[in-house]
Amino acid sequence: MTIRYPNGKVYKPSGEMKSENKLKRQDKKLSFSNRGKTLEDEINDTNIYYLNKQIAVIHKKPVPIQIVKVEYPKRSAAVIREAYFRTASTTDYNGVWNGYYIDFEAKETESKTSFPLKNMHPHQIKHMEDVTLQNGIAFTIVRFSKLDRYFVLPYTVLMSAWKEMESGGSKSIPLKVFESSTMEITPGFNPRIDYLSAIEKMIIEKE
Amino acid sequence: MTIRYPNGKVYKPSGEMKSENKLKRQDKKLSFSNRGKTLEDEINDTNIYYLNKQIAVIHKKPVPIQIVKVEYPKRSAAVIREAYFRTASTTDYNGVWNGYYIDFEAKETESKTSFPLKNMHPHQIKHMEDVTLQNGIAFTIVRFSKLDRYFVLPYTVLMSAWKEMESGGSKSIPLKVFESSTMEITPGFNPRIDYLSAIEKMIIEKE
Repeated sequence: MTIRYPNGKVYKPSGEMKSENKLKRQDKKLSFSNRGKTLEDEINDTNIYYLNKQIAVIHKKPVPIQIVKVEYPKRSAAVIREAYFRTASTTDYNGVWNGYYIDFEAKETESKTSFPLKNMHPHQIKHMEDVTLQNGIAFTIVRFSKLDRYFVLPYTVLMSAWKEMESGGSKSIPLKVFESSTMEITPGFNPRIDYLSAIEKMIIEKE
Repeated sequence: MTIRYPNGKVYKPSGEMKSENKLKRQDKKLSFSNRGKTLEDEINDTNIYYLNKQIAVIHKKPVPIQIVKVEYPKRSAAVIREAYFRTASTTDYNGVWNGYYIDFEAKETESKTSFPLKNMHPHQIKHMEDVTLQNGIAFTIVRFSKLDRYFVLPYTVLMSAWKEMESGGSKSIPLKVFESSTMEITPGFNPRIDYLSAIEKMIIEKE
């Protein structure tokens, strides 16, 4: 679909073009090694792939900022001169896939044996609970960086662990629980982290 | 649902509390006059109402910022010292309602007779097209400020007008089209702009 500006000029989605360039650069990098890439980079690449292939429309939300002071220099762009980071009230990623509302957080851990629950913020748990009540699909993508293993942790499994912790239980989710009760993702070339395939399997199993 | 931190402390969602305070303040204001409230304020109030009543989970996305310079003063929060506003690649609001993915933009016009299409950016049209292809619900809430009238403009109606403009037609959508082909919202006390009721009617009519 070609989209034009009101003045007739053809619109070129800069985000997509940038993404393609970015992908090219990163493909090169990938062919040598994946070290140094953050989970966020990997998920962003995956989301660009999903968008360009019309598989899903999922974006990372911008970092919330409290802006205090802005300067407006003549003949150039406004400059923010004082601002502070705020705590997000939701998870970082959301969007739509085949009619499903998708909502997730991405977390990395250096641990080789378990995922510490201190990685999650209560406001994220609250948000995922709210999303689940509205029949959205909420989960966390967890990367065990030292093991190079990736898991899709459904909110229900996270919630059980959180509840257990609240009543004095373990403050982390053992790798064994990930192996038995979540979905492992094998990282690929493109898409890098095909988390929607894992979600699809989960949905099919439920039905 | 009570949610606790890993250290056992009960989590109080600050956003919700703030919202309640904000609502109280604004209710007071509302009882005198609604002048001076922006459409964004009205939609935020509505979204807080939806969230607290567990009707829907819909949030405004943070403004995207390109951060260039950050200072880390000792014993106090990081300060952003140079940053620039970026163009958003999506619409401003999204979330989930009863299993439906909801995605929209909010626009005000001073015109009393039509909604100029220059209010919309091609990247927003592209995004709403993508969302629609994924079976999400995309629309624009338009406020004719001088008339104090509010409409839910479905993406399909917007797209027709946009296509017409691209082939040399009108660069705005007449108020008459809003009256005949979109859903008008009567602003209320709480929720202020009950756009989900309009969407619900639209869905029922389709089925």
